Amino acid sequence: MHYADGKSTPCEDVLPDQVRGCSDLNTSAFIRRMIRAERPDLVVFTGDNIFGFDSADAARSMDAAFAPAMEAGLPWAAVLGNHDQEGTLSREGVMRHVVGMKGTLSRVNPEGVEIDGYGNYHVEVYGAVGSVMSNKSVVNLYFLDSGDYSTVAGVGGYGWIKASQQVWFKQTSDRLQREYMGQPEPQKDPALGLVYFHIPLPEFASFDSSNFTGVRQEGISSASINSGFFTTMLEAGDVKAAFVGHDHINDFCGKLTGIHLCYAGGFGYHAYGKAGWSRRARVVYASLEKAVDGGWGDVKSIKTWKRLDDEKLSTIDTQVLWSKGSPGE
Amino acid sequence: MHYADGKSTPCEDVLPDQVRGCSDLNTSAFIRRMIRAERPDLVVFTGDNIFGFDSADAARSMDAAFAPAMEAGLPWAAVLGNHDQEGTLSREGVMRHVVGMKGTLSRVNPEGVEIDGYGNYHVEVYGAVGSVMSNKSVVNLYFLDSGDYSTVAGVGGYGWIKASQQVWFKQTSDRLQREYMGQPEPQKDPALGLVYFHIPLPEFASFDSSNFTGVRQEGISSASINSGFFTTMLEAGDVKAAFVGHDHINDFCGKLTGIHLCYAGGFGYHAYGKAGWSRRARVVYASLEKAVDGGWGDVKSIKTWKRLDDEKLSTIDTQVLWSKGSPGE
Repeated sequence: MHYADGKSTPCEDVLPDQVRGCSDLNTSAFIRRMIRAERPDLVVFTGDNIFGFDSADAARSMDAAFAPAMEAGLPWAAVLGNHDQEGTLSREGVMRHVVGMKGTLSRVNPEGVEIDGYGNYHVEVYGAVGSVMSNKSVVNLYFLDSGDYSTVAGVGGYGWIKASQQVWFKQTSDRLQREYMGQPEPQKDPALGLVYFHIPLPEFASFDSSNFTGVRQEGISSASINSGFFTTMLEAGDVKAAFVGHDHINDFCGKLTGIHLCYAGGFGYHAYGKAGWSRRARVVYASLEKAVDGGWGDVKSIKTWKRLDDEKLSTIDTQVLWSKGSPGE
Repeated sequence: MHYADGKSTPCEDVLPDQVRGCSDLNTSAFIRRMIRAERPDLVVFTGDNIFGFDSADAARSMDAAFAPAMEAGLPWAAVLGNHDQEGTLSREGVMRHVVGMKGTLSRVNPEGVEIDGYGNYHVEVYGAVGSVMSNKSVVNLYFLDSGDYSTVAGVGGYGWIKASQQVWFKQTSDRLQREYMGQPEPQKDPALGLVYFHIPLPEFASFDSSNFTGVRQEGISSASINSGFFTTMLEAGDVKAAFVGHDHINDFCGKLTGIHLCYAGGFGYHAYGKAGWSRRARVVYASLEKAVDGGWGDVKSIKTWKRLDDEKLSTIDTQVLWSKGSPGE
């Protein structure tokens, strides 16, 4: 979102006839539009929620940025980007403020674990109330702090997900898989995992237009070195897709050894973009199957599409990320 | 070493006139020659110590393989390769046998830590007896199990160092740095770290003849995915060089963002090689500086060279890996 001070914070990279009156409020209006159109069960913010450099008060900027999700009474979750801490609060301070806000599922960090960063947590999504899956988490959402900038001498560029975070992620995934495949109602395969963080992994550079859905219009701004999180996701075995922010005009999903690597969509108006190329948001939609008793069962498929902030709120790039029983899924 | 059954196990890839009478015993003879010539303080074996497929009894093969170090009364350390467990013992079984052998500093794993693999441990090398550094570890040696083969569906090839091992390594390095830079005799910079494991990191492919010392005569057989250990070594900040086995006819040291990535030398005769291209071993030599009181002080430099198993036990590729006070070191 790159939210700063609201009405006084101008839009970047919009067409000449869109400049006048355009501000952070357009970002807020786009959230409200998305919520009205999609009626989501959860809103996820993938970092650079505020643009600290231009924010007079980081806490106020966050209150305003997340307000539309709170007004709608929706649960929401956020991770940190590389700009959130550039204002009046540190990374820890930003995350501590976020977890105190209304409706958020965000957490600073797991308890009793030594871990790098702020905002490493997971959310379990249980099966339908009254169904056989009502006591099982059928989709697990993992949120990680991908850092801001390298602090290693001789290594420039952006941050990365560190080994301590990967151990926490892997142990959490292992536990959730044991629970899902154990009593009661033991399942044959692990529940689906979806992962959210800000900075793309180096593996996002594995794709071109021949093997992704969407567009690549700039370099992949991953860390300059590989910290191995893609490997750890593969080891875990439950992750079907990872969603990141960071690159505003890259907008694709590509699949690598069973995991979709997706951009979440350049959303904010006080953020670089491309004039005439609409701001956008990604929707992730899980469908449930009917169980043998006629009630709701397990997850049947995960679809995704994007909505453009144009006149019609156009839907583009619809694709199936996963469907039960598909070979190689 | 690729040791199997001794005298009955033939040599591979030697010249036609060298085939007759050539066996594992040539490997043992080369160790003895090296020990006589270099009088080392420690012998490190970088994996594929035995070639399990051709070994009738893994424990006996190991006893014979490491015998020359034991006979010489030298301390020695070993890590596992991808072939050690292919005989009558599992990876855990091989490592448990190793740690019971005479003179070894090898350990199965750190106590009280959940960690992947077998043979993750460290060795501290204290300063000269009677010197100001006699109560400080001036060089820290880290040994890790880089696994054997991928067990992730859809990912082929060799194993890798996992997040749990990287967290242990990083915590150990952090602690050693605190101790070295703390009381008594607080030091300005961390003590040097040297790392040993079997399978090269993907970053070994960063070099060509313009920026390494040695030769590259085959592909870099790293894992097909990057598990981030190079990044974790950079984060730790104390590591100056990492030494691996695995690729028998690649034999170089290249420096990447302050860390030398080195092959330890294709050593064993029952192992693929290149006929007419001598088996070899790498030597690592740490020099101490004179302290102001005239006694021994801290490490002044780390040099390396290789010895060829030719008539003269020729020394090649001598280079300085690190020297105190050099810019960028």
